[in-house]
Amino acid sequence: MKKQKVVTIGGGSGSFMVLTGLKKLPVELSAVVSMADDGGSSGALRDELGVLPPGDARQCLVALSNSSQTLRELFTYRYDNGGFKGHAFGNLFLSTMEKVSGGFDRAIKQAGQILNIKGQVLPVTLKSARLIAVLKNGKKIIGENKIYGNQADLHNLKKLYLKPAAELNPEVKAAVLAADKIIICPGDLYASIIPNLLVGGMKQILAKTRAKIIYVGNLMTKPGQTDGFTLVDYLKLVERYLGAGVIDYAIYNKEKPAVGLLKKYSRQGEDLVAVGDLSQLPKIKFLGYNLLSHQGFKVKPGDALAGLRSLIRHDPDKLAAVIYNL
Amino acid sequence: MKKQKVVTIGGGSGSFMVLTGLKKLPVELSAVVSMADDGGSSGALRDELGVLPPGDARQCLVALSNSSQTLRELFTYRYDNGGFKGHAFGNLFLSTMEKVSGGFDRAIKQAGQILNIKGQVLPVTLKSARLIAVLKNGKKIIGENKIYGNQADLHNLKKLYLKPAAELNPEVKAAVLAADKIIICPGDLYASIIPNLLVGGMKQILAKTRAKIIYVGNLMTKPGQTDGFTLVDYLKLVERYLGAGVIDYAIYNKEKPAVGLLKKYSRQGEDLVAVGDLSQLPKIKFLGYNLLSHQGFKVKPGDALAGLRSLIRHDPDKLAAVIYNL
Repeated sequence: MKKQKVVTIGGGSGSFMVLTGLKKLPVELSAVVSMADDGGSSGALRDELGVLPPGDARQCLVALSNSSQTLRELFTYRYDNGGFKGHAFGNLFLSTMEKVSGGFDRAIKQAGQILNIKGQVLPVTLKSARLIAVLKNGKKIIGENKIYGNQADLHNLKKLYLKPAAELNPEVKAAVLAADKIIICPGDLYASIIPNLLVGGMKQILAKTRAKIIYVGNLMTKPGQTDGFTLVDYLKLVERYLGAGVIDYAIYNKEKPAVGLLKKYSRQGEDLVAVGDLSQLPKIKFLGYNLLSHQGFKVKPGDALAGLRSLIRHDPDKLAAVIYNL
Repeated sequence: MKKQKVVTIGGGSGSFMVLTGLKKLPVELSAVVSMADDGGSSGALRDELGVLPPGDARQCLVALSNSSQTLRELFTYRYDNGGFKGHAFGNLFLSTMEKVSGGFDRAIKQAGQILNIKGQVLPVTLKSARLIAVLKNGKKIIGENKIYGNQADLHNLKKLYLKPAAELNPEVKAAVLAADKIIICPGDLYASIIPNLLVGGMKQILAKTRAKIIYVGNLMTKPGQTDGFTLVDYLKLVERYLGAGVIDYAIYNKEKPAVGLLKKYSRQGEDLVAVGDLSQLPKIKFLGYNLLSHQGFKVKPGDALAGLRSLIRHDPDKLAAVIYNL
């Protein structure tokens, strides 16, 4: 049987989850990652070494890795003191290899060999660009990190763009055109998903490919950015960047988390994403499944939100099965 | 034909040169490296991450590597700005892998796989110890870095020791006992060579092995430390730590460098090592050869001494041939 060719589009964490499930199935994977990150470890490396942001690519590399647990842990290891505090080792690897080899794409391929990955990881663009948000009052927010962290203004968002304009990595174009299925992964709408769609040529190529284009809905809203958003609201926003009629399927979770958990999230301003009025998007096929993970999860002390986020989360295997069987 | 088993003992740069030559010949190599380094990148990693000093091991790994030029360059890459300024990437790799895998020896083995090395690199000890110098006036100099940099007091050296006392890595013991030849590499006497000999058990095992023990003489003296030293003086000092009669052969260079070059070195306080009165060490077989490199070398601007050091240097292939044919 011919292997399905699947392309994922997203940022770090959402793509990590989708890839972790799909990796176990007979598919050929291409993980397309956003290159607008300018916060944390990736942001510091951009500033200090003049490289492209490695963080999202690193997460996808680790997700696709079939190497020893030790090597995967090495790439994920984060320093907690010294001059490297806050950096993930895998980010240093990618950034240093970019300096040595002369290209971020080559750095990813070297890391992919060492990590023995299944499939490939492709930066959406090889151009260093910043994400800019323009609000309705004319105010600009410059940089993905500031946009991601903004909990006040994004309800009044007028437009997002990349500066300088960035063109599509030719390998992404080839993968999208050859794909059977393209997954728009869960993740932060403004910081992880849309920065991929803003890259010059992405809209055109997604309109052109014969692959099924599948949107996977987020489980929870994000305070100050998508409060009260339904699945339909998310999709309408994505369609603003892709054009109506491009997305073929929307997979969403219909399982209800425990009431106690929902209350905990609610205190952090995060609520379950409701489905909304599906009749507003008649061209999209909506597929609701029970997709929640019931695996235990270690909550790190002092890391309240990170702990919460991971309590209500997708089961990678359940989601992968739905995608695979579609 | 059975491959010769060769063990090198030394620090970073001298061992790098010896290994670079021997790697091309049909030998089984074990590079034993000093673990007393506490300056520069290695010193900072010791202090900040609580790891063993990786620098000397990194140099030997790169010398033995049969991987792509890009991977070798990656491990050698040194950051020139940011929070990692002055660090070699390979040092970060080894130190982070030590944290993740729980052992410096395991970190070296992982790096060795990635770098596809011929042979093995063995830390002389797995214990974190500092080198201490006691002068005749009772003053102590603590740490290899301070001892290495000392250009005033070491003529009055009374003794050197490691604190806490460090015992031999069992893999070093096995390699030394199985060896056909053991090379004491050129290098800084106090900072690279003797710290290996101070490790508990090294003296005993070198007395016990049936391997030929071969000392390779330095080309130039080091100001403030070995001024005026002859080959015989070096050997007497090494014998103080190993016992008389342990060293079987001493290989030295008898080729004269250009007078102009010698003058340049002399202005930095470095002079050619003369042979001395060989009759003082009747048990050692002395072997003089033309061993100088005539390869061109890029001198980095602003790096006067490093530039000089590398102008008068051993030819790795000539030296390796002498060792191999012995």
